[in-house]
This record gives sequence, C-alpha cells and structure tokens, in this order.
Amino acid sequence: LPSSLNRQFRLRARPSGRIKPSDFQLVETPVPEPAAGEALVRTLYLSLDPTNRIWMSDVEQYMPPVALGEVMRGGGLGEVVASRNPAYEVGDLVTGLVGWQDFLLTDGSGMGALTKLPKGLPIALPSLLGGVGITGITAYFGLLEIGRPEPGETVVVSAAAGATGSVAGQIAKIRGCRVVGIAGGRSKCDWLTQELGFDAAVDYKAPGWQQALAAACPSGVDVDFENVGGEIMDEVLARMNLNGRVALCGMISGYNADEPMRGRFDAILMKRLTVRGFIVIDFAPRFTEAALQLAQWTLEGKLKHRETIVDGLENAPTAINRLFDGDNVGKLLVKVAEPSAR
Amino acid sequence: LPSSLNRQFRLRARPSGRIKPSDFQLVETPVPEPAAGEALVRTLYLSLDPTNRIWMSDVEQYMPPVALGEVMRGGGLGEVVASRNPAYEVGDLVTGLVGWQDFLLTDGSGMGALTKLPKGLPIALPSLLGGVGITGITAYFGLLEIGRPEPGETVVVSAAAGATGSVAGQIAKIRGCRVVGIAGGRSKCDWLTQELGFDAAVDYKAPGWQQALAAACPSGVDVDFENVGGEIMDEVLARMNLNGRVALCGMISGYNADEPMRGRFDAILMKRLTVRGFIVIDFAPRFTEAALQLAQWTLEGKLKHRETIVDGLENAPTAINRLFDGDNVGKLLVKVAEPSAR
Repeated sequence: LPSSLNRQFRLRARPSGRIKPSDFQLVETPVPEPAAGEALVRTLYLSLDPTNRIWMSDVEQYMPPVALGEVMRGGGLGEVVASRNPAYEVGDLVTGLVGWQDFLLTDGSGMGALTKLPKGLPIALPSLLGGVGITGITAYFGLLEIGRPEPGETVVVSAAAGATGSVAGQIAKIRGCRVVGIAGGRSKCDWLTQELGFDAAVDYKAPGWQQALAAACPSGVDVDFENVGGEIMDEVLARMNLNGRVALCGMISGYNADEPMRGRFDAILMKRLTVRGFIVIDFAPRFTEAALQLAQWTLEGKLKHRETIVDGLENAPTAINRLFDGDNVGKLLVKVAEPSAR
Repeated sequence: LPSSLNRQFRLRARPSGRIKPSDFQLVETPVPEPAAGEALVRTLYLSLDPTNRIWMSDVEQYMPPVALGEVMRGGGLGEVVASRNPAYEVGDLVTGLVGWQDFLLTDGSGMGALTKLPKGLPIALPSLLGGVGITGITAYFGLLEIGRPEPGETVVVSAAAGATGSVAGQIAKIRGCRVVGIAGGRSKCDWLTQELGFDAAVDYKAPGWQQALAAACPSGVDVDFENVGGEIMDEVLARMNLNGRVALCGMISGYNADEPMRGRFDAILMKRLTVRGFIVIDFAPRFTEAALQLAQWTLEGKLKHRETIVDGLENAPTAINRLFDGDNVGKLLVKVAEPSAR
C-alpha cells in the first residue's frame, strides 16, 4: 500500500457566490485499508465540472447536495491499488465519483460504483474523462437525443470551447449541420473555427456580439445546445426557428447567483420550441454505445479534444473557478497522481 | 341580401397594457356583394381569446400581427347569406377567422378559409366555438400530444375555469389522472370540483394559495397545462416531478406587459422537464378526430361546457378585457346576430 496520507477536501460551508478555499476543510487521514469486499482506489485525475457547483448548494437538484462535512463529490479517474473485491484488480483503471481526495474505498455499489476501463486503450487518460468520457457522452446524447438536429440545420452551442460544448459542436458537424459556437475571447473562437471545423464562432466578450450571432445564423437557429443561460441564452432563443429544440445541458452563468435561473418563455410559446433539460445519467444503459462511437471518431481524427490540466489536488478549490471565469479550454482537470507503470 | 350596414372594428393603435376602445376605429360600410368565386358570411358569434391580444402587438409571433388599419382578426362562427362560390351555400354554418365585423367576404382560401359545419348537430352553436370547437381542440391536442399524461399522474391546469383549461382538465379526468385546477375565486373553484369533476381546485386569489397548491399535489406534478405564466407558473414548476411535461398553451398574465415573459429554467434543468410551446393549427390535419371525440364526450355527458356570452358586436373591445380580469367562466363569446331559422 502507498504510505502517504489521504488528503480529503470536505465541504465546510455552502458557497455564496464564487467558490472560496475557505468553503472546504482539508483533512489528512491515514490511507484506509480495504475491508472484505472493498477496493482501494488512488485518484489520478479529478474532473472539474459546473455541476460541482450545483452539488455544493442546498437547492433542489438531480442528486442530493453534498452534505456539510462530507468529502466533496467529484468525478474522476483512478487506479486500483489494493483490492479485496473480486470485481477489481490492482492496476485496474476506473472512472466514477472518486471525490476530492487522494484515495477512495469502494465496495462497487451505489455512488461508489466505478466503471472499469479496458487496458491499453489508444486514448490518453485525460481524454477518457473528457471527450471520450462522461463529458463527451453528455454531448453525444444531449445533441443527438435531445437536440435531434437534421443535416443542414443550424446548431448553436454556447460555452462552445468548453469540455461539453466543443464535443457537441463537432458531433453536429459530423451530422452535417451548420455549427455556430459562442465562446469568450478571440483565441477560443479561432480554435473552434480553425481546429474543430465550426462554421462560425462568436466572441461574446466583443462589442456587437449579438449582431455577430445574427450574422452567423442567416437561416435562424434550429437547435440550441445550451450550457450558459442568462443573456447569451436570451439572444439565441430570440433567433430560434419554428419548432426549434433547446437541449438544456447547463446554465453556468447562473450557478453562482442566489436567484432562480430564468429564461424567455415567450420564445418557447411563440416559436413552439421544445426545451428539455437532461442529465447524462438518464442514458446510462447506452453509455457503451456513446463511448465507442466517440473513441472511433477520435481515432479517425474527426473529434478533437483539448484539456486544461492543473497539477495537484491542493489546487482543486481555486481551479474550479476557472470554469466560471471562462479561463479554461476544453476539459478542466486536476492531475492528482501519476499512474503506476502499466 | 341583408340591408344593414357592415360594422368593422379596425385596429387603430397597438395597445399599451390593457386594450382600450380607442385602440379601434369603428367603420360602417355598405354590406359588400360577393364577386364571382366569393361568398358573403354574416357573423353570428365572435370568439374572444387571449391570442387576440397577441395579434394586436407588433411582436414576433406565430402569425403576422394585425396591421394598423386592418379589420381586427378574430375567430368566430357565421352563416352564409349569399354565395357565388360553389363550395358555400346560403344557410351554411361556417367557422374560421371571420374578423370583428358583421359581414365577411371570402373566396375560401388563405386566412379566409372557413370550415363548414354539418347541419343539425345536436350541439349548441356557442359550444361549436368553445368546448367542441377550436378551444376544445386546443385542449385536446395540448393535453394528449404535448402533456401526454398517464393514468394516475397529477395534472395541474391553470386558468382552469377558462375555455381551454376547463376542457383540458376534463380530458385529463377522462384519462384517469388526478386533476388540480387553478382559478380565481371561490365560485369558479366550486364549479371545477362540483360540476366538472376536478379532484381539487386552488383559488389563487385566496391567501396561502401556494400552500393549498402543494397540499392538492401530494405526489408532485407530472403535467402542467399552462395558460397563465408568471407567478402561478413559477409555483407549479417548483412542484414538478422528474421528467415532467409542460404543455405551454399560453401565458395570459404577460400579454399586457411590455417585457418578454420569463420563467424558471432552473426547474427545467434540475427536473429534466420537457417544456413545449404549441399552437392548435399545427394539428390541423387531425381536427376532425378531435372534434368528433369532443362531440361524443359532450353527448355522453362526460364533457361539460359553459360560455360567457356578451351581446352585440359593439361590445367586443371592452368585453375582451374580461379575459385578463378573469371575469368570465368558460368560453367568452360575443353574440353578433341571430341565425336565420334553420
């Protein structure tokens, strides 16, 4: 067993507005030993996602919020380092809710259920949490099952340079759509159009971006893959075509606010839109289909990924704010430990 | 030909807030004579609907707004009094966009297309505009195709004592749902529970109505048939169950406001709701199915109607405000003329 301590970030206070390091308590405990039926997993990469912020708030949501004093919930990728559970072998790579900690004991059930990854995949570990992992799977089902774009339709993606948006836009391109991304800053927009093949990208930090959005959507908008909410969603909704669809994946602009997030219902009524909120776990029985397809597109060069990797578990409480500042490209990860030689 | 003049209400100004009589110009012209291919229709009943208010505003909507100087658009029921079109015979009863006028010339095409009603129907003319007419058809498709309630689910209907809501709630009862209506005032609520068979009715004008709504929906809300918007919709959305559906039929609380109508998108996201705006004309190919079913339920006594009938075309510009004041029960109509003896 590794001899280091187990660092855990426990939720001390529910954030008001931005997340502060003082919202967590850093606790160091001995690395636990697995009891019969348990496995010990060392965290290699921690996934930082907008949903972490929701879990920290005591609002009605799709899972129970993290309780005060509990280890902060978070997805990630780890390696089994000891096992008394026949389902897990030392050296196995696993993904799931590893939490903001160096080590996790799991009996393989409930929230501790971890998915084993095949060995020797020709895809880098960070991508297995991002474009080919839960983020990519979110984009896959959100776009194809909720947005349901037809070839030739116009798809707008907000937070398009983010982990989910960048994949959703590329899948829409694969489906033959006109794809317009909304992102903050020139360099992100250039990445979308020059590297990922988006037809247009709108920099919402530039003056006149509303006009740029209109110009980029000369035939209106058929599908909105919505990650941001607020003013950006308002502008997109105002340009929706009749019978358009809104795949409501997230509304990151509102997660730090105390007020409920609102949007233009008049557009839903007048344009006969279908707005549907979703969460990827509803599609769990089909995860394999999505992961295989995403892996195949990646190997064929049709799907590109980028990660922003922050080194060290100790930086998780500050790094997560990069999501809200738009200070990341692609998937935001914390690297917690090196994998053992495979 | 009748020898009276043709009174027309033409739109003079777009209302700001409530509709005022001065928003219209009353013009009296000779009764026109049909040219070849035209029929002359005398308006018997004019249908007053929330959508009239939308048509008066220069906002993006599902049809072009009424142009200034144009005869006010309105649905209704009329009788053919002269015809040079083989599709229409003198004495035919027709429904469609007759407009706020005593007489209409139609060539049977475009917006002037009128639907002939079978003669000798055992259903009163006002009901042919209400529960068995376009309003009932709206309730039918909105509830069954957009709301899609399953037996045993809880359906909440706002403006439940109105023309559409009262029918939607009764259809939900026929489908085996628990049905909760929201209406203004004790007598409307009593009508819903004692006459129409709603399981509960919540008087939103009574203090503590939010708690009454919660108590009436002990298992949450699966389907919201939404006619009102605003604060009432907020309260219903806050009680929606996972994967609930919102049939967005209208938002009358916002039609007199200058601001876009908004609603809680956080509920859509967190509860994975499907919110869909609709308009009955999207279902035009299936109108016959709906009308026949509504007529059958009516004759079987399963579907009850009520109308609030105002006498005289001259009262249309003031009577329409009863919709916004909640000062009508069931379908609001203006009786314009007596049908000839049939």
